Amino acid sequence: MTPAVAAFTTITQAGESGGRDQMATVTGRNGVDVDRLVATVGAVQSDPNVAQFTFRARSSWETGGRNRGTLQEFEHAGATSTERPVPFELVGDEPPVLLGTNAGPNAVELCLQALAFCYGVGFIYNAAAKGIEIEELRYEVEGDLDLHRFLGLGGSRAGFSAIRATGWVRSPNATQEQLEELCQYVQDTSPVRDILANAVPVSTDLVVLD
Amino acid sequence: MTPAVAAFTTITQAGESGGRDQMATVTGRNGVDVDRLVATVGAVQSDPNVAQFTFRARSSWETGGRNRGTLQEFEHAGATSTERPVPFELVGDEPPVLLGTNAGPNAVELCLQALAFCYGVGFIYNAAAKGIEIEELRYEVEGDLDLHRFLGLGGSRAGFSAIRATGWVRSPNATQEQLEELCQYVQDTSPVRDILANAVPVSTDLVVLD
Repeated sequence: MTPAVAAFTTITQAGESGGRDQMATVTGRNGVDVDRLVATVGAVQSDPNVAQFTFRARSSWETGGRNRGTLQEFEHAGATSTERPVPFELVGDEPPVLLGTNAGPNAVELCLQALAFCYGVGFIYNAAAKGIEIEELRYEVEGDLDLHRFLGLGGSRAGFSAIRATGWVRSPNATQEQLEELCQYVQDTSPVRDILANAVPVSTDLVVLD
Repeated sequence: MTPAVAAFTTITQAGESGGRDQMATVTGRNGVDVDRLVATVGAVQSDPNVAQFTFRARSSWETGGRNRGTLQEFEHAGATSTERPVPFELVGDEPPVLLGTNAGPNAVELCLQALAFCYGVGFIYNAAAKGIEIEELRYEVEGDLDLHRFLGLGGSRAGFSAIRATGWVRSPNATQEQLEELCQYVQDTSPVRDILANAVPVSTDLVVLD
């Protein structure tokens, strides 16, 4: 158990009070432990450092366009999480038309998948907190890309010129208006939407090995 | 074979001329079919539409923070690619500290993995085109995230405040200066770096199902 989990658990056991009591009595909506979600909010309010994360991904080139990625540890509140004894492995590759062997999705597709996943988590967690039950939730995310710049042929930008996301949701106890409000709230608070829709400072260093 | 592959193949068979002849005689460096890479550049120069792609990702919510993603078809030069008869599947989830069950990496981690993969492909393809052999190439990418905004507690932004990438490369025939120049070129032409480091317009629609 990481220090942060311990902190959340302590606060849960101590019984958070105030306006969150009503939500804290409901557990398990949409598969979300709402008590722990409320406790997490409380823990961050008590100690802003609990909100600090550094995530990390590694890759190792195999051949051609194929790379193997690993995702395991991350930093939380200044300590390295040990929640994942085994890393997640991911293979990245290009389709044949982009000179790959189709061993995995390509890098820009992962950005679209990330947005779909982020919207999914944000919608479900916030629905749970608001008492909205979700029966079905799907996303489709598209991105338009012009390869000129990647190929060294000029072009205005190397990445997506536009990203379009569509969600489909079914709820037994929420109105269309409530679900549309939630969709807007999720957009406003989505980490991946922010990363894509706004500029993030990116620094890149290279170490040349002997 | 997609129309685009056919186009590239035709051009290869026709024998591209000009300054690319020298590169076109070398095939297979770093596992990259350099002839086809050169042909791809030629195909895009002949018809800018060949550079147009729309990529797509789908997700389906399962429970809590867990979503299942699929990546399969994409649009290329106005047609739907059939290069992938079977979709790639990806599970997204959160670690326990973020109320998930650790069934997969989370959404922001996928953004970091995407950058690592994009740098890997860009470095290898461009090294191949320049006659640089690569023996080893690894990346580690980190991103700092403050959870306040996701939790509805204010905060300046929901996503990464900074992303740091480090690469390690080993080449038997390139100088440190050549490799550093290549690293800079890859940054300047990397689709995922552009997507992260610059703003992309993101539109989001919701369809409420009965």
